[in-house]
Amino acid sequence: MMDADVIVVGGGVIGTAIAWRAAVAGNQVTLIDPDTDDKASLVAAGMLGPVSESVFGEQDLLALNLHAIDRFPAFNAELEAASGQPTGLRTEGTLAVAYDSGDLAALDRLTEFRHSIGLKAERLDARACRRLEPFLAPSTRGGVLATGDLSVDNRRYLAALRAAAARAGVRTIVGYVTNVAPGLVRFRAPADDGAAAETAELSAANVVVAAGWGTGRIEGVPDQIRKAIRPVKGQILRLRHPGNLPHIISHTIRAIVQGRDIYLVPRADGELVVGATQEERDDRDITAGAVHDLLRDAMTAVPAISELILAEASAGRRPGTSDNGPILGPITPRLIVAGGHFRNGVLLSAVTADAVVALLADDRPHQAWTPFNPGRLT
Amino acid sequence: MMDADVIVVGGGVIGTAIAWRAAVAGNQVTLIDPDTDDKASLVAAGMLGPVSESVFGEQDLLALNLHAIDRFPAFNAELEAASGQPTGLRTEGTLAVAYDSGDLAALDRLTEFRHSIGLKAERLDARACRRLEPFLAPSTRGGVLATGDLSVDNRRYLAALRAAAARAGVRTIVGYVTNVAPGLVRFRAPADDGAAAETAELSAANVVVAAGWGTGRIEGVPDQIRKAIRPVKGQILRLRHPGNLPHIISHTIRAIVQGRDIYLVPRADGELVVGATQEERDDRDITAGAVHDLLRDAMTAVPAISELILAEASAGRRPGTSDNGPILGPITPRLIVAGGHFRNGVLLSAVTADAVVALLADDRPHQAWTPFNPGRLT
Repeated sequence: MMDADVIVVGGGVIGTAIAWRAAVAGNQVTLIDPDTDDKASLVAAGMLGPVSESVFGEQDLLALNLHAIDRFPAFNAELEAASGQPTGLRTEGTLAVAYDSGDLAALDRLTEFRHSIGLKAERLDARACRRLEPFLAPSTRGGVLATGDLSVDNRRYLAALRAAAARAGVRTIVGYVTNVAPGLVRFRAPADDGAAAETAELSAANVVVAAGWGTGRIEGVPDQIRKAIRPVKGQILRLRHPGNLPHIISHTIRAIVQGRDIYLVPRADGELVVGATQEERDDRDITAGAVHDLLRDAMTAVPAISELILAEASAGRRPGTSDNGPILGPITPRLIVAGGHFRNGVLLSAVTADAVVALLADDRPHQAWTPFNPGRLT
Repeated sequence: MMDADVIVVGGGVIGTAIAWRAAVAGNQVTLIDPDTDDKASLVAAGMLGPVSESVFGEQDLLALNLHAIDRFPAFNAELEAASGQPTGLRTEGTLAVAYDSGDLAALDRLTEFRHSIGLKAERLDARACRRLEPFLAPSTRGGVLATGDLSVDNRRYLAALRAAAARAGVRTIVGYVTNVAPGLVRFRAPADDGAAAETAELSAANVVVAAGWGTGRIEGVPDQIRKAIRPVKGQILRLRHPGNLPHIISHTIRAIVQGRDIYLVPRADGELVVGATQEERDDRDITAGAVHDLLRDAMTAVPAISELILAEASAGRRPGTSDNGPILGPITPRLIVAGGHFRNGVLLSAVTADAVVALLADDRPHQAWTPFNPGRLT
């Protein structure tokens, strides 16, 4: 007899969303996760925008992102209902601002592009930008408001997924998965008394590997997939408003400062997330240089940020891939991979869960997933 | 019968040094301290230099600082022996660097001044500066090496004082002192079970108030002293070297960057302290603007600091006074104040303890203390 219908490897937003939806679909689900804070899902900002500079020319990724942003609100509403927890969804949209004519021209191209694919985007002059966001720097030359963009509080979102999964009957085991095979998972479980970890094995009709950048470290995942996924370090800041200060921004704000993309994501509770570096490094050190650059760029966009409290600096490792696209599909019968979501894990979590549940039921995932089959890497 | 010979109010470096030395001198000593991390002694950098821009024209303070730096090494050696703990004393000295001819001229004036009072100071050209400290910015124009300056690890120093005090028989009570009177102290002791704090009283032949900026909040301290002491907020950073990086500086480095004084204090264990803001504020918030400015100024002096780990940002409140000098002496018989040490608490701790022990024995403190009698404030 098998231990479960489905074993999900990895408890970030991808793995937990899959586990929840698979359980709702009637499967007995076990989720294995090391339960550390080393999760890209916990470090992220929760910004949900289908279009940014990076999808120009990447039509397949754009189509997937558009599918994801369409799906997100209904999925999120169901999640909040199922978990009884708010995820902090915000619908004010993203205001991208520019400081010189080069930036403005780039924003104009992005606006045309948004319009060409049927998305809303409104070009605003400096005065209109500052009417929306009065604390923008006086040097703001203009901007574009993308009202379709969303954001969630990524930590509340993950917490809600966990609660929903637990309510749906998902069994969670703390452990590091070291090996996978069709229908089989081997993992080290931490021993309670501080003794050496014990190795254990579980079997299931299907195994789903959703271990983020760690997917590359699991034996039994084919080499071409392990090689395609790499950790891309990101450092990010969490600021808070001191008690006497009104909230200084209400939209997600994006800007290019000295050639670097910066984003500011506000929360209803007064948190303001400033992100993020993108470093080809495999550590989680908070470095003086990165914190400095993030603060400088944020204060260039919104000078009053200098008055906010620096509550947290954290670092995570995103699962980057060789072609910047996620990897989703069966590797062999009974072994599915759902990884490589890079900077879009929260945005793609809902449609990833949908696609995996379809695969588990021998249905076809949404066509937007077709280009992201693991087969492309061979 | 009295509860002790001496009650010391405040367990920072000043109060603890007094308690230790008073016990060594044969007194039964009780120290009362709230035991929180809200102590200027824990936030400080431990830089010990008798001369900086701020003592120009303040001859009395300069004389006191010179007395203090003379006394410090022997006191520290005795402390390390008595406590069995190293304090991290460093004797490499301070290298003050300049970036333009205005800075250089200011350093030259400081060097002349040092020479005029018999202190060592050596003018170095840019090449010599970078021979001493190879990671200094290429824009360094020159500097001055003050070999007589010292530094200690302020946290280890306080820990050693506590250990020495305990070994000498000092009894420590956790509590907030609310009132003092000649020979009497009233305090709130936290209740173990989370119930409301209880008020208690202790009596002694002598009470010594060494409560830093908090001295201004204690009933029974005369108004002119309470008004003279104010909290001056300082934010400071603690950096650490990642494992693969050699230590990038070996001297204390000072610089004026964009008009602000910055100092970098290295430790043998790879810590590097970057200080400090000086703000007329009464909170301990870590603000985005202050962290940014400290990092920018530090990286201006030593660009490789960008690679270090930002381990901690902390804020403390220094006990500033109306004339920038400490306040030491009897207020009335059996009630002594030792406060207002502002930025020089660690440096002055040894001679403050000596002076209070002299007062307790009806001797006269060192003459350098004469101008800092509380009487000057009336």
